[in-house]
Amino acid sequence: MKPSNALYPAPVVLVTSVDEGGKPNIITLAWAANIVSVPPHVGISVGPQRYSNGLIHRTGEFVVNMPTSDILKETDYCGIVSGRKVDKFKDTKLSPVKATKVKPPLIKQCPVSIECKVKNIINIGSHDLFIGEVVTIEVDQEVLDQRKNIDFKKLKAITYSPFTGDYYSVGEKLGQIGFSMKK
Amino acid sequence: MKPSNALYPAPVVLVTSVDEGGKPNIITLAWAANIVSVPPHVGISVGPQRYSNGLIHRTGEFVVNMPTSDILKETDYCGIVSGRKVDKFKDTKLSPVKATKVKPPLIKQCPVSIECKVKNIINIGSHDLFIGEVVTIEVDQEVLDQRKNIDFKKLKAITYSPFTGDYYSVGEKLGQIGFSMKK
Repeated sequence: MKPSNALYPAPVVLVTSVDEGGKPNIITLAWAANIVSVPPHVGISVGPQRYSNGLIHRTGEFVVNMPTSDILKETDYCGIVSGRKVDKFKDTKLSPVKATKVKPPLIKQCPVSIECKVKNIINIGSHDLFIGEVVTIEVDQEVLDQRKNIDFKKLKAITYSPFTGDYYSVGEKLGQIGFSMKK
Repeated sequence: MKPSNALYPAPVVLVTSVDEGGKPNIITLAWAANIVSVPPHVGISVGPQRYSNGLIHRTGEFVVNMPTSDILKETDYCGIVSGRKVDKFKDTKLSPVKATKVKPPLIKQCPVSIECKVKNIINIGSHDLFIGEVVTIEVDQEVLDQRKNIDFKKLKAITYSPFTGDYYSVGEKLGQIGFSMKK
């Protein structure tokens, strides 16, 4: 096959940013990942033509909000329309919530939100890669188990096929890291 | 929550590289993503202490092989032991296959392999982010449907929870990109 974006499955995330006046926008992305463990950093790729690209360039902050399958329709919508033309919070009825350490809002309907400050921007071809240092993480009480750890299945994460443009749920637990070494 | 790696679900990939003599190694990674669409690029993060880090630094090439749940045990093993001490191809019985455009081998048991040449290396904290341009992609005939498109479910992809260190399968199809705009 000729070169394409074939790394799968991709996560699906809702990135919030703000303009200089504080007006928030949302963009749905699948080119996103954890890239550094210590100190924690994430990377998100956004095309220069996208409205969020300019906002993040100018304000240097973004929040990676993790959607659930309950808001799949809203998630799909935020990846297709432009914040230049519509107010995505208003259209989707998703609820902005004040973040702790950055100006862009969290999205109330997302159980995990990762607040980030931009440390590095790398332009390659069609995308800018924004590398953000994680400054804090907000987690809904509802997705914690009795020991206050995150219950992964409660997150109802969405994953994405770059080949077909289809959204998928996360399936069954297959094993835990290190299981191959146990007798 | 304090800052951590909270972007999920993460993909699970087997990255192959070679030393100057052509001897191959395998490393399992979850910090990996598509980062540029045109021309296609992927990013993989590898700690400087890992054996594969030096190999990729010195030879400038790597292959991102996509494992299936059928080789989950081998995949787990390749993320835990070091290529400095063991021959992971020999230990796992995974089969190296000559790549088309780079020196590191493909892994026969992986239905999709992405051949890459390093274009950029960014060190942040505990990891080096290697940005690779995709030079070609190899796909097994067996995962294609009748129209020669990739059948996503046949890939038996593995996904990963950064919170719990658990591997998960991909679940059910939830919808296709753009569905929110259809009447």
